[in-house]
Amino acid sequence: MTNHQIRKKAILSCAITGVLATRKQCPSIPYTPEEIALETKRAYDAGATIAHIHAREPDGSASWRPEVFAEIKERVEKLSPILINFSTGGVTGTIQDRAESAVKLKPYMAAVNMGTMNYAIWSKKEKKFHMSGIFENPFQDIQWLLENLRAQGVVPELECFDAGHICNADYFIEMGLLKAPMHFSLIMGVCGGIKGTRRCLENQVSILPEGSEFQVIGIGRDQWQLGRWGLELGGHLRVGLEDNFYLPDGTTMATSNGDLCTAGVALMKELGVTPMTLEETKAAFK
Amino acid sequence: MTNHQIRKKAILSCAITGVLATRKQCPSIPYTPEEIALETKRAYDAGATIAHIHAREPDGSASWRPEVFAEIKERVEKLSPILINFSTGGVTGTIQDRAESAVKLKPYMAAVNMGTMNYAIWSKKEKKFHMSGIFENPFQDIQWLLENLRAQGVVPELECFDAGHICNADYFIEMGLLKAPMHFSLIMGVCGGIKGTRRCLENQVSILPEGSEFQVIGIGRDQWQLGRWGLELGGHLRVGLEDNFYLPDGTTMATSNGDLCTAGVALMKELGVTPMTLEETKAAFK
Amino acid sequence: MTNHQIRKKAILSCAITGVLATRKQCPSIPYTPEEIALETKRAYDAGATIAHIHAREPDGSASWRPEVFAEIKERVEKLSPILINFSTGGVTGTIQDRAESAVKLKPYMAAVNMGTMNYAIWSKKEKKFHMSGIFENPFQDIQWLLENLRAQGVVPELECFDAGHICNADYFIEMGLLKAPMHFSLIMGVCGGIKGTRRCLENQVSILPEGSEFQVIGIGRDQWQLGRWGLELGGHLRVGLEDNFYLPDGTTMATSNGDLCTAGVALMKELGVTPMTLEETKAAFK
Amino acid sequence: MTNHQIRKKAILSCAITGVLATRKQCPSIPYTPEEIALETKRAYDAGATIAHIHAREPDGSASWRPEVFAEIKERVEKLSPILINFSTGGVTGTIQDRAESAVKLKPYMAAVNMGTMNYAIWSKKEKKFHMSGIFENPFQDIQWLLENLRAQGVVPELECFDAGHICNADYFIEMGLLKAPMHFSLIMGVCGGIKGTRRCLENQVSILPEGSEFQVIGIGRDQWQLGRWGLELGGHLRVGLEDNFYLPDGTTMATSNGDLCTAGVALMKELGVTPMTLEETKAAFK
Repeated sequence: MTNHQIRKKAILSCAITGVLATRKQCPSIPYTPEEIALETKRAYDAGATIAHIHAREPDGSASWRPEVFAEIKERVEKLSPILINFSTGGVTGTIQDRAESAVKLKPYMAAVNMGTMNYAIWSKKEKKFHMSGIFENPFQDIQWLLENLRAQGVVPELECFDAGHICNADYFIEMGLLKAPMHFSLIMGVCGGIKGTRRCLENQVSILPEGSEFQVIGIGRDQWQLGRWGLELGGHLRVGLEDNFYLPDGTTMATSNGDLCTAGVALMKELGVTPMTLEETKAAFK
Repeated sequence: MTNHQIRKKAILSCAITGVLATRKQCPSIPYTPEEIALETKRAYDAGATIAHIHAREPDGSASWRPEVFAEIKERVEKLSPILINFSTGGVTGTIQDRAESAVKLKPYMAAVNMGTMNYAIWSKKEKKFHMSGIFENPFQDIQWLLENLRAQGVVPELECFDAGHICNADYFIEMGLLKAPMHFSLIMGVCGGIKGTRRCLENQVSILPEGSEFQVIGIGRDQWQLGRWGLELGGHLRVGLEDNFYLPDGTTMATSNGDLCTAGVALMKELGVTPMTLEETKAAFK
Repeated sequence: MTNHQIRKKAILSCAITGVLATRKQCPSIPYTPEEIALETKRAYDAGATIAHIHAREPDGSASWRPEVFAEIKERVEKLSPILINFSTGGVTGTIQDRAESAVKLKPYMAAVNMGTMNYAIWSKKEKKFHMSGIFENPFQDIQWLLENLRAQGVVPELECFDAGHICNADYFIEMGLLKAPMHFSLIMGVCGGIKGTRRCLENQVSILPEGSEFQVIGIGRDQWQLGRWGLELGGHLRVGLEDNFYLPDGTTMATSNGDLCTAGVALMKELGVTPMTLEETKAAFK
Repeated sequence: MTNHQIRKKAILSCAITGVLATRKQCPSIPYTPEEIALETKRAYDAGATIAHIHAREPDGSASWRPEVFAEIKERVEKLSPILINFSTGGVTGTIQDRAESAVKLKPYMAAVNMGTMNYAIWSKKEKKFHMSGIFENPFQDIQWLLENLRAQGVVPELECFDAGHICNADYFIEMGLLKAPMHFSLIMGVCGGIKGTRRCLENQVSILPEGSEFQVIGIGRDQWQLGRWGLELGGHLRVGLEDNFYLPDGTTMATSNGDLCTAGVALMKELGVTPMTLEETKAAFK
C-alpha cells in the first residue's frame, strides 16, 4: 500500500439496529432483544468484534427501559462473546434517563455524543426540513457521562458530528476524564453536521487528540466509500444496518448484519488490513 | 506574493463593541449609542467601511430594545457614511426578540448565526466550565431571519462557528434564500466550536459554497494571526474591540477602534492588499 | 458520491507495452507491431479509447526507428479506431531522435516529459541503486517538442513525475505553447520522483494549471489504488501492462491488456463513472 | 499561538553571500574571505548561529579553491563562534571538485543537494529562458557526499527543491547514511522546482522523514512570507543576502546581513519564538 498510515489490523464494529430505520424499509432490522442478539451473533460469526446497540420497544421505537437493556445484554452474551457498545444518545429525556441503566450494566463500551448541533431531515424534493430540532449534548451532560463511564470501567466511544465536537475533547482531557488511547467515531454527512467529503474527513482526523483511534460512520450509500477512506487514513471500520442496508454494489439489500460484516472484512482484505480478534480488540483501549 | 489567491482589494470591518467585554477590561469599550457612534467614526476615519454593532444598555449589558437600535443608527449615520451591520445573536430571547427591530431599520447588513453548538467559558486554571449552555440557532430561526432580511434588502453576514454551520448554508441555497455572492464570517477558536488552527481555517474556506466571500473572526490575541491567514487565503479583514483589545504587538491596549483599524490597514498593506472604498464595499454583495 | 468533484464520464487509456517489462515477467507483453496492434484491439474492445504506445524491436528493446512507428500506426488503425498516443521519452538519444518520426505520423496524442530528475531502480534487498542515471528533459527539449506537436496538431500528454514538473507548464503557457484544456499524466512513486501517497497526489492535482484534466500513472500493484484515487479526485483512468501486470486482486496476472481494461471499466462503474466514447474522447482536448 | 506545532526555540541561519548576486545589485554583498568574515560577525551579533557560506573569487565569481575555503574558515572563526555551513552545489565541476576541500575543513555543516532538476532563469518580459540547463545531483554524487560528511563528522543540510528530492532521502536512510535528527532546507519557488505557495510548503513538510527539522529558503521578496510560514509550520528560519536584499517592508535594501538577522529575530519574536543560542544549535543535530 502506498499510504503508510494504514493499519495492519483494524476493528470491525457492527451497528446492529439504530432507532430510526424500520422493518418496512429493511425487513432484517431487529427490534426485540432476541432478534438483536441473533443479529449480533451473525455479525460476530462474520468477523465483527464490537456490536453497537440501541434498545428498542417491540414496535421498533427507541427504548430507554433498564429491563430492555438488561435483557439485550443477557441474550447477546449467551450467543457469542462479541463486545457490547450501548448507545446513550437521543433527542428526548435527560442524559440520566438515557444512559444510567446502560452504564450500570457495564458494557465494554458506551457512546458519548461530544457536542450539540441542529438536527433535521432535509427533503431535497420538497426543499424543506422535517423533524427539525436540536440534538442537545451540553458540556455538563458529557461530563456526567464520562464520569460515570469511568466509575464503571466502560470505554467511551466519542461520537463527533462536527469539527468542534472533536475540539471539545480537549477540555475533558485537561479535566482528566479522557486519556489516550481514545476511541473516536467520526459521523459524516448528517444534516446539521460536517459534510462527508474526503477533505472534511482528513481534517477531522488531523485534529484528533494525540493517542486517538477512530472509525468513520457514514449514513446510507456513501457508507462504503467513507468506510474505505477511514481505513485508508488509519481508522477502524464500522458497518451495520443502523447506517446502511446495502452491500457495496449499492443495490443489493443485506439480509442480515452478517452480510454487511462479510463485505466489511472483504473491504479490509482488499486494502491489506486484517480484522482484529476479540482479544486484540479488548487490548486496544486498555 | 506567492499565494495567488490573495485579494487585491479587501473590506475592513470593525466590530465596535460586542456585549461581553466590559470597560473594566478595556476602558475604550463604548456602551451608549453616542459612544458607539463616536467609535464608528474613528473606525471609518482609519479605513473601515463596515461597522458590526451590538446594542447595549447604559450599564453595558446586551440590549434588544428597538429604540436603542434606532438611536444607534441615527447617531452613526450623522457622523460618517460607514455601513452598519447589526448583530442578531444571543443566548436569550427568541430570534424575533433579537432581530425584528434591527432588521426593520434596514441596516446594510445583519448577522445570521448558521448553527447550534455548546457554548461556555473554559477556565484553564480551575479546569472547569463557566456559563455553560447551548447557543441555539435551529433551522427554523435561520429560515425566519433569512426571509426577513431578504424582504428588507439587508445583506446577511453568515456567522459560522463550526464546519457544519457552513454546510447548513446549502439547504438555504436550495430553498432560494441565499445566493452568491454570499458573505461568510468564520469564527475560530470559540469554546464549543472549531479550533483556530491554520489547517482548520483552510478546511472552512474549502467548503464555502461557490461564489462566497469571507472574513475570519478571531478572539483575543490570536486575532491578528487569524486575520493575516484570512487575508492570505483570499478573505476580507475584521478587527475591533469586540474581538480583541490589543495591537499586533500583543501588549499595547488600543485606545479606540480607530487604533485597531489603523493596524488592520497596515497589515493589509504588508500583504499587498488595498482596503476597499465605501462604494466598492457596497458593490461587493450586490 | 460524497466527493462532488468526481467526473460523470472519464477516459480509459491503456499503456500497451512500455519498454522495460519483458515477456519473462509477463508473457502477454507485446513486442512487434503486429502484437502491439492486437493488444490495442483488445483494449479498445474492453472500453479503452486511447492507447499509449512505445515502439520496440523484435527482441523487446526500445526502438526509435521511423519504420517501426509507421508499421505500428498502420496495423493499429486496421484493427480498431482507438486513438494513438506515442511515447517520446527515454534516457538515450536526443529529443529529435526519440520524437521526430513519431510526431510526423500525426498520432492523436504524444507524451511530453515535463522535467528532469534522477532515475534509478532501488533494490530494497541489497540497499543499493541499479541503473542510476539522470532522466534528462531540459527546457529546450520540452519547447522543441511542444512546438512540433502544435505544428502537427498532436495533443500533448504532459507527463509529470514531480511537483516542479507541473510548475514548469506555467512557462510554456506564458509562451503560448500550451493552453486549456491540457492533459496531464501524474506519475507517482517512481524512484527519483514524488511519492505515491494520497496526500502527494492531492497536492499535484491542486497545482494543475486552470483548465487541466489529468490521469494518474501508478507503477506496480499500487496502480489500482492510485487509479481509484485519481478518479475520486476528478481524473481520468489509465491502466495497462506497461504499468502493472495484475488485476485488482493483486495476484491474478492479466492475460492481455483487455483484462486490465475490463477491470478499469468495472472500477469506474463502482464509482459511478461512465467510460467516454471515442467521440467524447476526441472532443475532450479540442 | 493558535498553531500548536510552532517551535518555542528556533535556529536563525544566515546565507551570507551566495554566488549569483553581485555588488551592482546590492553593494553589501561580500566577495573576499575578509568581507565574508565581517558579514558573519554582523550576522552573529544580530542573533544568527549558523552562517551558510559560498566561496567566491575576488571578482565575485564562484570559487572551489581549497585555499579560499580555508581562509574563509580561519577568518570567520577569528571574529565569532558562529557555526559554519559550507555550500557544495553548483552546475560546474564534479561533486569532488566542489565538495572535497570544504568537507576536509570539517565545518559544522555542509549542504547536500538531494536531487536533479532543470534550472534556468525565466524572463517574464521576453517570455524566454536564460541560462537554461540541468542542475545535476545524481544518486551516486549524493551518496559520495553523505559518506564523506559522515566520515568527517559534518552535519548534512539536505537541500530539496522539489517533492521528489525529499523522497530521495528515504533511500539514504535505508542505507544507513542518514538518521534523525535530520536538517532539511526546503527551497521554494526556484525555476525548475516546486512553487512557493503555502499549500506546496505544507506538502513538503508533510513528507519529511520522521525526526526531521527544517527551514524554508525563499528567493527574493517572497522570502519573508515563506520564512514566516516555515516558522508557523514548526521550522527554523533562514535569512541572508544570498536569498534576498530587502527588509520585510519590501523596499528598504539591507546594509548588511546583520540587518536581515535583526529583522529575522523580530519576526521570530512576533510569533513567540526565541532564537536558539550557539549551544542549543550545536545540540540540535547531535
